[in-house]
Amino acid sequence: MKINANYRQLENSYLFSTIAKKVAAYKKENPHKDVIRLGIGDVTLPLCDVSIRAMASAVEEMGTVKGFHGYGPEQGYDFLRSAIAGYYQTKGVSLDPDEIFVSDGAKSDLANFLDILSVDNTVLIPDPVYPVYVDSNVMAGRRIRYMDANQENRFLPMPEEGVKADIVYLCSPNNPTGAVYGREQLKQWVEYALSNDAIILFDAAYEAFIQEPDLPWSIYGIEGAKKCAVEFCSLSKTAGFTGTRCGYTVVPRELICEGTALSKFWLRRQTTKFNGVAYIVQRGAEAVLTEEGRKQCKENIAYYLDNAGIISDTLEKMGIWFTGGKNSPYIWMKCPGGMSSWEYFDYLLHQANVVGTPGSGFGKNGEGFFRLSSFGDKENVKKAMERIAKLTRP
Amino acid sequence: MKINANYRQLENSYLFSTIAKKVAAYKKENPHKDVIRLGIGDVTLPLCDVSIRAMASAVEEMGTVKGFHGYGPEQGYDFLRSAIAGYYQTKGVSLDPDEIFVSDGAKSDLANFLDILSVDNTVLIPDPVYPVYVDSNVMAGRRIRYMDANQENRFLPMPEEGVKADIVYLCSPNNPTGAVYGREQLKQWVEYALSNDAIILFDAAYEAFIQEPDLPWSIYGIEGAKKCAVEFCSLSKTAGFTGTRCGYTVVPRELICEGTALSKFWLRRQTTKFNGVAYIVQRGAEAVLTEEGRKQCKENIAYYLDNAGIISDTLEKMGIWFTGGKNSPYIWMKCPGGMSSWEYFDYLLHQANVVGTPGSGFGKNGEGFFRLSSFGDKENVKKAMERIAKLTRP
Repeated sequence: MKINANYRQLENSYLFSTIAKKVAAYKKENPHKDVIRLGIGDVTLPLCDVSIRAMASAVEEMGTVKGFHGYGPEQGYDFLRSAIAGYYQTKGVSLDPDEIFVSDGAKSDLANFLDILSVDNTVLIPDPVYPVYVDSNVMAGRRIRYMDANQENRFLPMPEEGVKADIVYLCSPNNPTGAVYGREQLKQWVEYALSNDAIILFDAAYEAFIQEPDLPWSIYGIEGAKKCAVEFCSLSKTAGFTGTRCGYTVVPRELICEGTALSKFWLRRQTTKFNGVAYIVQRGAEAVLTEEGRKQCKENIAYYLDNAGIISDTLEKMGIWFTGGKNSPYIWMKCPGGMSSWEYFDYLLHQANVVGTPGSGFGKNGEGFFRLSSFGDKENVKKAMERIAKLTRP
Repeated sequence: MKINANYRQLENSYLFSTIAKKVAAYKKENPHKDVIRLGIGDVTLPLCDVSIRAMASAVEEMGTVKGFHGYGPEQGYDFLRSAIAGYYQTKGVSLDPDEIFVSDGAKSDLANFLDILSVDNTVLIPDPVYPVYVDSNVMAGRRIRYMDANQENRFLPMPEEGVKADIVYLCSPNNPTGAVYGREQLKQWVEYALSNDAIILFDAAYEAFIQEPDLPWSIYGIEGAKKCAVEFCSLSKTAGFTGTRCGYTVVPRELICEGTALSKFWLRRQTTKFNGVAYIVQRGAEAVLTEEGRKQCKENIAYYLDNAGIISDTLEKMGIWFTGGKNSPYIWMKCPGGMSSWEYFDYLLHQANVVGTPGSGFGKNGEGFFRLSSFGDKENVKKAMERIAKLTRP
């Protein structure tokens, strides 16, 4: 028996384990220091009340003969697919529930969706990047081209003349950079995809953080996108579902490949290799998409955005260049004094007892940059930024 | 952009949709007939109380700052991995929690596990078969060899001289045939795998139905199996989790491929393409593995096995050949009077108003056979079997 040799090509990422080791070593030597973590990419506020009540009631149902639910549809219950379509409608995008596929999260779908695409396709991936895009393609042996995201393009790379690709990854608001594409920019990407017979895999996991009404929160706000784009979204960041696991993928009916609706292949993949999301979780997801649920989730997002504001205000006052922080939970800052990402990590840990994430861990263009996250406790965020502001710049 | 051409090679299965259409048509013409379904492969009894209470409490936790859980480990929480190891220990198999990977179900894992194995491997699959084994390999373009399961070998095919394969699928107790391998038979399969450098993918989803103490309920009861077998299991049938979604896969430390522990690749696959099972569900799963939980689940399984006994007793009295029904929820019967699977389906629907599953839907060797399931209501099972017993044999 032979293993998939592509797995040997994967690069090991030591980013988060190195961070953990460095923090542990520092704390061991300095047990009384109050170390604040602004590195995490995970939510911290509890689930909203309406969702808790819906899941509690679904749990009770599962204990009764009448309310028990066995296998559900792999693509999700109609009640949830309709609720998601309703959510899109409130923001002006019309989708049929049949175009929506419920899953256990955007990460799974982003990786699993590749299953239905040929390994002969060339993939275009921004650098810096959420590592799943790269690793899932390396596992399949696809050819990867990188596009540079950098200070010049404000970490929003645009299509380039002569760069051919079949599959394009876009993530907006971006993880790790917090940068958000404008309407005109996404329009150029849709035009690129349509004229190159390419497909856009649009990661909209952070869409709920967008506050400015002019910024596109879905690729389907752009004309023609339904013919060339699949959108991946999740309740992880929208509703704090990182440990509750529910996402959804939109495969529009108009997206036709080689004469067949792509959704037909995705449905076949999901019915073969997936068995749907827990009934209890789908009821919780339905609840957060009600008017009351959306209101409660917005309050949580406002809390995180307040934190992001505290971080970005401090950086602005310090004259530090950054992206994100306004329509995103992430702030992507340039390391001061020409420090490398890891130099700044060590500097912050030792001088301010603040932990962030070195940008170089997300790709070569991340070198010299640093990610701060707004998912922490407000008092801690304030304290951390006060400490950073007081640092004598190197 | 090109799609994965292997998807074009998939055969469409119309088994369950044809059944649904035929039943609907019959009911439309005979609205007052009481049609009983013995075709379903899904549990019907509610979740046991201890699991409901654990999930209700986990839901409450998720609504509090202190009890909230965000991202969990992709391979499952330690509390659940330890509980699964404990469950194996009660049956005499020692596993380290690190060898256990929690997932959203055996179907997902059985399909996704192929991701880490080379597409150049040859696969050996029994016929008749649970269709996921076939389809997930067709999607990857692997060469499939079939082994005949039939009346002569009591639907338990054994290794054959000269038949080389790299990946072998075994499912015991079997879906769809209900047949269960004995210890000596599994020993031969383990020897085959070890001497052919093959891996056994052992589907143990129905292990909880095994009552006879001499029958192996895990492949790891066989010496040497940890060197050549991965075991897939699930709480779907053990604890009625078909709509709650929790399974687990065992990749023993001793299973080395090309010099590397296979578990290392599986962990990489899961951390890249999966984000773990909901905290709430993992707490429910932990509860069913406690002593009290196991007791409550056994009561449900006893109920289904009683149904299976009613079915098999009737068939025995009628002199009809069958497998299963004793250590399995399924009864795989020979169609009487030389009828084909679909002929018998129509005959039963029209003459007895009973719905079963035509064996031909599971592969060519299923032709002339028929699957009855014990997951229904006891009174209905009794009624159905009384009707079948009264039929004048064709």
